[in-house]
Order: sequence, then C-alpha cells, then structure tokens
Amino acid sequence: MYSAPVSEIGFMLRHVAEFDRIADAFGGDELSEDLVEAILGEAGRFAAEEIAPLNKIADRFGTPWDNGEVTTPPGWREAYSGWAEGGWNGLTAPAAYGGQDLPTMLQVATYEMWNSASMSFAIGPTLTAGAIEALIAHASDDLKKTYLAKLVSGEWMATMNLTEPQAGSDLGALRSRADRNEDGTYSVFGQKIFITYGEHDLTDNIVHLVLARLPDAPAGTRGISLFLVPKFLVNEDGTLGERNDVHCASVEHKLGIHGSPTCTMVYGDKGGAKGWLVGEEHKGLACMFTMMNNARLAVGVQGLGVAEAALQHALAYANERRQGKAPGWSGEGMSPISAHPDIRRNLMTMRALTSVARALCYRCAAAIDMAHKSEGAEKKSWAERAALLTPLAKAVPTDIGVEVASLGVQIHGGMGYIEETGAAQFLRDARIAPIYEGTNGIQAIDLVTRKLPLSGSGEVRGFIEEMRAIVNEAATQNHDGFAEMAGKVGTALDDLAAATDWMLEAQKDGRMEEALAGATPFLRLFGLAAGGALLVQGALATARIGVEAPADALRIHVARYFAGNLIGETASLRFTVTDGSASLLTADAALMAG
Amino acid sequence: MYSAPVSEIGFMLRHVAEFDRIADAFGGDELSEDLVEAILGEAGRFAAEEIAPLNKIADRFGTPWDNGEVTTPPGWREAYSGWAEGGWNGLTAPAAYGGQDLPTMLQVATYEMWNSASMSFAIGPTLTAGAIEALIAHASDDLKKTYLAKLVSGEWMATMNLTEPQAGSDLGALRSRADRNEDGTYSVFGQKIFITYGEHDLTDNIVHLVLARLPDAPAGTRGISLFLVPKFLVNEDGTLGERNDVHCASVEHKLGIHGSPTCTMVYGDKGGAKGWLVGEEHKGLACMFTMMNNARLAVGVQGLGVAEAALQHALAYANERRQGKAPGWSGEGMSPISAHPDIRRNLMTMRALTSVARALCYRCAAAIDMAHKSEGAEKKSWAERAALLTPLAKAVPTDIGVEVASLGVQIHGGMGYIEETGAAQFLRDARIAPIYEGTNGIQAIDLVTRKLPLSGSGEVRGFIEEMRAIVNEAATQNHDGFAEMAGKVGTALDDLAAATDWMLEAQKDGRMEEALAGATPFLRLFGLAAGGALLVQGALATARIGVEAPADALRIHVARYFAGNLIGETASLRFTVTDGSASLLTADAALMAG
Repeated sequence: MYSAPVSEIGFMLRHVAEFDRIADAFGGDELSEDLVEAILGEAGRFAAEEIAPLNKIADRFGTPWDNGEVTTPPGWREAYSGWAEGGWNGLTAPAAYGGQDLPTMLQVATYEMWNSASMSFAIGPTLTAGAIEALIAHASDDLKKTYLAKLVSGEWMATMNLTEPQAGSDLGALRSRADRNEDGTYSVFGQKIFITYGEHDLTDNIVHLVLARLPDAPAGTRGISLFLVPKFLVNEDGTLGERNDVHCASVEHKLGIHGSPTCTMVYGDKGGAKGWLVGEEHKGLACMFTMMNNARLAVGVQGLGVAEAALQHALAYANERRQGKAPGWSGEGMSPISAHPDIRRNLMTMRALTSVARALCYRCAAAIDMAHKSEGAEKKSWAERAALLTPLAKAVPTDIGVEVASLGVQIHGGMGYIEETGAAQFLRDARIAPIYEGTNGIQAIDLVTRKLPLSGSGEVRGFIEEMRAIVNEAATQNHDGFAEMAGKVGTALDDLAAATDWMLEAQKDGRMEEALAGATPFLRLFGLAAGGALLVQGALATARIGVEAPADALRIHVARYFAGNLIGETASLRFTVTDGSASLLTADAALMAG
Repeated sequence: MYSAPVSEIGFMLRHVAEFDRIADAFGGDELSEDLVEAILGEAGRFAAEEIAPLNKIADRFGTPWDNGEVTTPPGWREAYSGWAEGGWNGLTAPAAYGGQDLPTMLQVATYEMWNSASMSFAIGPTLTAGAIEALIAHASDDLKKTYLAKLVSGEWMATMNLTEPQAGSDLGALRSRADRNEDGTYSVFGQKIFITYGEHDLTDNIVHLVLARLPDAPAGTRGISLFLVPKFLVNEDGTLGERNDVHCASVEHKLGIHGSPTCTMVYGDKGGAKGWLVGEEHKGLACMFTMMNNARLAVGVQGLGVAEAALQHALAYANERRQGKAPGWSGEGMSPISAHPDIRRNLMTMRALTSVARALCYRCAAAIDMAHKSEGAEKKSWAERAALLTPLAKAVPTDIGVEVASLGVQIHGGMGYIEETGAAQFLRDARIAPIYEGTNGIQAIDLVTRKLPLSGSGEVRGFIEEMRAIVNEAATQNHDGFAEMAGKVGTALDDLAAATDWMLEAQKDGRMEEALAGATPFLRLFGLAAGGALLVQGALATARIGVEAPADALRIHVARYFAGNLIGETASLRFTVTDGSASLLTADAALMAG
C-alpha cells in the first residue's frame, strides 16, 4: 500500500527545486519550513489513508452511465468532500476567492501524492485547477464573482472542452459553434469528446469551459472563442437554477483510469446551451494557452505519481516474494527476489527514473512560481525557463510513468499480469499520460520549434550552462564516485549541446522536416541529460548536509546508477538526431504503400 | 484488419533464415517453393479471414467459468475445428501420427500469422505442440499410441502444468505429489496455477502434462517427475471413459489475452487424479527441457505476431486520420498523420523492430531444424546455435511486441486509449510474453551463464563472426547507404564482442554477481547487434535480386533506418554491462530499506 515519500519530496523541493527562493518570493516568513512540512505530511496522510484504498475499487467499478447520469465509484464522494474540506483544492488560488495563495510547487508536490494514491481521482481536481486559472486571467468580474469561490472551495468542479472527433491535436479544425444572444450571453452547439469528468455525481454543479466558433469567426485557430457553460444556471443569489442544455451522451470504455469518467458532451441539442464568453471573442485559444504550462506540468506529475506508486508496489513485492538463491545469499531457503541482481537492476532503474521525473516536475514548478512572482527582465527570464521546461516536464515523466509501471509488472512475474495484484493497473492508468494534453510527440515539436529559439537560443544555452555548473562542482568532490558520475553526466550535456546546435541550425536553414524528424529523440536526450544533472545536484546537497538515513545514501547511489547505467544513451540519441533523419525521410513513399 | 504479410515472410524465410538449406535437409524435392508458398498463402488467408475477426470479441467475452466448466468466446469452437481440420496442428509432427513432418521454420511462420490474428487463440495449440514434442521424445509406446494421433489431429488439446503458488521461476520449490499405484499408474495430488487452456470447451478431452514429486523424491529440481493426466480416462478402444479427478477451480482475471483461459487446476481433490509417468522417475524436468527451445521460440513468435498486427493497425490509422499540415504537404486540407515526420519515425521504428523480431525467430527456427536433421559434429553445432539463439528469440521479440504495441497506441492518440479501437488490446495482450516461459530476465541469465560458455565460447564467437561477414559484404557494396549502414552495424558488433569478452571473463573470475547484474543490458545489446546484421543480410539479398516492388525498397530503408537510428544504443549498453554494475551492487542495502 502506498506510503507518501514525504521526506524525499521535501528534500527535492529544498535542494533540487530551490524552494528557499520561492519561499522568499512568496513572503518568506509566512512560508516557513514547518508549514511546508505540515502541508506535505497531511497531504501524504490523506493520500495514503483516504484516497489510495479506493483506487482498485474504482478500477473495477468504473463510472457507469445511465440516461445521461454518471455514477462515480463507491467511496469517491466521501473522499472528494473530505479532500475539498481539507482545503486541498484551493492551495494556489488567490485568498480573495478563498484560496491559500501558496506556490505552484507545493500544489505539484501534493498532486504527486494524489496521483500516486489514484490517478483517476486526482485528474478531476487537476482540471478544475486549470479552469480556475483561466477564469482568474480572463473572465469578467461577474463570472468571477459567480463561479470562482465555489470552484476554489471545490463545491463545484470544472471541465475543459477542446477535442472534437475531427479536431484533436489540430484544434483549428473544431466546428462547435456559438451564436450571440441579445442579452449578451451565447447559445453553444456542438459535440465534444474525451471530456474528463464531463459528468459525475461529486458536485451539485459542473462548470464547462468550451471552445467554439462564432458565426463570423475566421477559419483555423484564430477563430476560436472560449465559453463558460454551467450544467445548472446560477441564480442571482448563487443558488442553482435551470438545467442547461448540455448533456453527457456516453462515457468511454478505456484502457485505464476507469475511475475518471471520460465523456462525450453534447451542447445545444435542445435549442442551445447558455454560455458566457471568457476573454475576448476569437481569442479563446490564447485563454487556453494561459494555463497550458500548468496543465502540461500537471500531466507530467501524473506520470511521476504513478511511477512512485508502481515502484513502491514492486519493491514491497520483491522484498516479500522468494524464489531461488541469489549469489551470496546466506539466509535460509529461497532468497527474496529483491536480492537477485537482475531484479535489483529493475528496481534501481525504476527508482532512478522516478527521481528524474520528480526533479523535472519540481524544477519546472519553481520556474512557474518565479515567473508569477517576479517582474520585468527577471519575469521574462523565469517565464522562458518555465516555457522551456514545460514540454520536458510533461513528456519525460509521462514516458517514465509507463516505463516504470511496465517494469513493475515485470518484477511481479505472472502475478503482475493478474489484475487483482494491482501492478497492471498502474501500467493501464499511466498509458494515457503520454497522449493527452498534447501528445509527447507534440511536446517534442514544441520544444524544438518554439522553445529552443527563445531569446535567440539564449534560454536553452543558459539552462545547459546551469546544468554544467552542477556537474563541474561534482567533479571537484572527493566523495566516492562523484568524479566519475560528473564525467558521464558532463558527456551527456556535451551531447545535448551538440544536438541543440544542430536543431537550431537545421531550423535556421529551413530544414524543418529534418528538425521535426529528430524532435522525439532530441527530447529524450534532453530529459536524460537534464535529469542526470539534477540528480547530481541532489547528490551534492546530500553530501553537503551529510549522509544520515539510508535514504540519503540511496539518493547518492541513485544518481551514480543513473549516470553509470542509463544516461549513456545520449551518445546514440545525439547521432539519431543529427544523422538519423536521412534514412527516415527517404523512406516515406515506400512506407505509405503499406 | 490484419492482412498476412505472406511475401515478406517468404522473403525472410528464404534470404535471412536460409530456407534452402532446411529444404535440402528435409528432402528438397518434396519441399518445393510452390508448396511453401501454398502453405503460407493458405495460412495467411485462414488467419486473416477466420481467426482475426474473433480477436476483439474474445477480448470482451473472456472465458467465463461456471462450476468447473469454462466457455470459450463466441466463434472460437468453429474456428478451432476449422483450423484443426486444415491440418495446421500437425505441421511438424511425424507422419506416423498423422503429422506432416515439415520444418519448425514453417510452423513458426504460420504461428506468426495465428498470433497476429489472435494471440489468445494461438496460444492453445502452441501448448499442445509442446506436449506432442515431449510425448514423442519421452512417452512409452502405449501412451504414444493412445494420445499422439488425437493430439496431432487437434481432436484433443494438451496443457503444461508447472507453476505452483510458491514455485514460479524456481521449479525446485514445487510440492505437487504423485503416489505409485499397484497397476503401474500414479495418483497425482496438488494445485497448479496459471495453466493456459487448463479447461475449455474446444475439445472433448484435455491431456495435462503435470510436474509432481514421488514420495521418495530428492528435494529440489532433481526430484521432479512428469505425468500425463487426462481429463477423461481413455478406454482400450480409444473412446472416452471416466472423468478423472482434475478440476478447474477458477480462471484468472488478466490484463490481456482474455480469450485464453488461465486456470487454477486442482489434482486429486477426490482421492487422486490418475496419471501415467512420462519418461523416467525424477527426470521430469529434463523431459520439459526437451521442448524448452521450441516453447521459448514459440513465445518469441507471439511477440512478433502481435508486433506485426499492431504495426498494420497503426499504419492504417495513420494513413486515414488527418490532422494539421505536415511540412511539404500540398494536398487539400489536413494531411494524414502518416505524413508528419514524428509519426513516420514511430511507424519506421515499429516496422524495423518487427523485422528484427522476425529475423531472430526465423533464424532460431532454422537452427532447430538443422539440429533436428543433421548428425554428429554438425548436429552439435546446430544444437548449440539453437541454444544460443533461443533466449534471444524469446526475449527480444517479446520486448519488441510490447514496445511496438505501445507505439501503436501512441500513434492513435486519444483513440488509442479507447478499448473499441483495438490498439490497446495489442498492448495488453503483448505484455504477458516477456513474463512467461521464463521471464526475459531469466532468458538473459540463461544467455550469459549457459549459452556464452558453449564450446568454450566458440559458439558465440562463431556467431558474431558470421554476423560480421554479412556486414563486411555490405561494406563493399555501391548501393546507396550500404557502406554507412555496414559501418554502424559493424560498430555494434564490436560492442557485442567486447561485452561478450567481459561477460566470459567475469564468470571465469567468479564475479557472478557482476555478470548477472549486466545480463539484461547484455541481452538487449546482443539483440540489437544481431538484429541489425540480419536486417543487413535482408537488404543485401534484396539488392542482389533487384528492387522491384515498394516492399523491396522499404526493406532496404528499414535496414538503413535501424542502423542509423536504433542500433547505436549498443555503445552505451556495452558500458552499462562492463562498468554499470558497480553503482548497482553497492546500493542494495539502502534500497532494501525501501
């Protein structure tokens, strides 16, 4: 059963994500170390005790649909209301709306735990958080007054309605439409698919944010507007009024996250769903992009959360299950399988990858917080850092979530394939995260085409130099293995720098097809090199503070293991990026012929 | 929908698995090219038309258990009897028992197609084929007379009963027991788990092969005997008699292969299941090992089959689905996603990995056939080749099956996560293959500890030299890209040779823990290097024959793509093997503390 790694999370916040700087920015006195520990500890308790026990039940029960109504799994309502009452929904929201004005970094840390406990549970509030952010940035005062406090308290939940059957990665193709009414409201029509928590029984009202086109809208992405469409209209006094013309037509039968209802939503089937414009007409996509960084990071955190849970699950099994005799085993009878070198390799790989995922997510959260709290040139610089790290923090941890969960299944042997064990559920749940909120392929394209050129490539070069400084510091330490580790991570950073140069050059030369063909291996290379450097940073801090608990020694081992066993792939990825596309791009005609 | 790649399979048989040599060994005249084409063509038709349409239905329906009886999915019985009537079950069995005495290589080629059509369907006959082999090699004439013809015709099916709750990878721990009866039969008692097709309604009788201990058996693996335990006893005249004391207590709820009943079997609950000894007392494990090469290869073929099916499924979707505009797209509206470079990379990776899986499986089958048909030193040499390639042919294609199926899900985007699309089923089905019939970790240990030392390492060195000869030939060709491809594959073979040297040295020095810690990366390195060389062999043959169809051009592209984009990982794997274990093995104490 899941136990929240509160002290490891705390360490990572302080020493890899440089929490002190954030605390200062948020008004240091109020954000004491004690408060942070209390928050993490209580979140960990709630996640482990109140949410985690529901995860398997939810997987079995699903979210049955009946005549437009969706029932959440047993225990879900109670857990959600306890969670909302605990104030977890409003962690980062402004105090003016009942929030706690805390850094995103703490929200990310708590979401890691909610996701480890149950990805299906955590995803609902994740979307509400995104909607809150969009409304704060773009909604009229009236809309804010009517909706924000109830969304911040968790009394109502919200959804994001983007996808249509013909418009997935390409939102320019969307067809839902909105007509202007005389009273300033809009009538919304259309069908949306893959709407997470589009319908459910957790809250009395559901606030849908919907992308649609006005009749006179330009074609493509510049003709999309954002509307707020509540399930129930809200009376002047804040009570619920009429049922709006939005209905859940079905829920999907999915590979995983069975506890999360994925809905087809139909707007305007009975004359038009009443909606209110958010932001300006035709600028809906820009409103969405406001919260894109956070939403993508939030999906990365799903990968991290599931990876941690799968690791704990596999480690417990490997320490319990006995088969054969490991070399050097002197105990009675069979040894636990965790003593076998090959199983140890799998466990260490899971541990190292999970730590990389955590480091990237928290580091990205730090940049978002600093961008939020700083001004002028500093703000621009942090915003660029957040922009650079976002595709990495989305794609790398979600790929890791799948890889770690799959290794977890493997460690369980035949038992891993049996659903009651729970190992397979982690794999099924994790598999969506590389897909939604922009597929990881799209993250790679975003990284290459939009993020590398930031500040004339100054942003990415600055980041690589920061990582190199960490490695240079490690190279001078006398601790066992640090110099070797620094050497290997340094080589990976050389590979990253070379591949980055090539990517920038290719785009400057207009060789877009080549650049795009190398995007995914480039992102992987970036994640390995940056992840390795961040693990070194953690190892350095551990050595500086002093190795006290086994967890401290392990943290250093994990960094060394990653450098000695996993990071070396950057050498081949570099050449895949720079040389590999030729053999890919010449082949398409033949490939298309099937 | 699946379409059998009959001509690609035929090419691979002839030019990578060197089918002519097999045909000679089996009596060349009878095994004409026409006959082989007819066999492949008809198998492809049956797989695509009769089996594939049932695969998704079976996934939904599963194999419900009711009071000891198991119902197979709708259409399963008809498909199975049509399949058995087609003679597909007895392809390699001796003519004396109604078989067709054909090479294993053709069986493997047809099983690729059955597995592409439905892994759940194909796995039943796979186990029957293993049982037939064990009985031919070890059973008494009486048992052969009673059972073999019916198993070869497919009128009855068979199972393999090894695993018990406490005895999975370590069969020495098994506890099922058998008492000697006065009439020469045995009474078998015990519980077996994970028994594939342990109970079903496809055939009137089911023949269980069961590992159990005699009362005076030595402890461990040297005290295990093999028994034949029929579901129904067989009368003298061959008709079915009494129901035996063996019952299916439950079926598992699994991640995938829902059409294949995975049973808990209880023997002797009502006084003892009547069994007959196969082979000698206490030598049961040796009997099992007789067919281990074939069974492991058969599981590798499952990985290959699912990979091919997932690739076809994803390619069809990518050619149909339109989103965005790919660079250079000049068609109307959105381009098919198969035009986007990142999707093309995924498709090419799927294609290349599937080809590697096919090459390894067919090459291994060739060695098994040659060992079967040759004598003396030649037989020993081919048997060692089969032994060397078996862990590779099991582990590499099954890892590839999971990787390719997962890429297939990714290409489908959100639709890949919805069960009705079918992409997710390939992933769920494929995920068992790296686990059973010896986990891939155990394959790696087998490769390192038992196969590398064969003939004082002469076998592995000879194989690497053969691969190098292929690459050397390619290096001298003037065809576009061949020299470059040869250079990259040659480097991978250098990595393989160096890692092999280190592995042999480590074991000679008694550094077993280090050798075992590097086993899995070593196997992956071996698979990449050998796979790359075999793709080069295919490319050479294609160039020699002449590029006519698009499939010929594609085959060369795939080999170049693999060399230019995927094989380079051997460079880092080599150092993971030779240097990586230090940071792993020093860490265990901390890791165990969790």
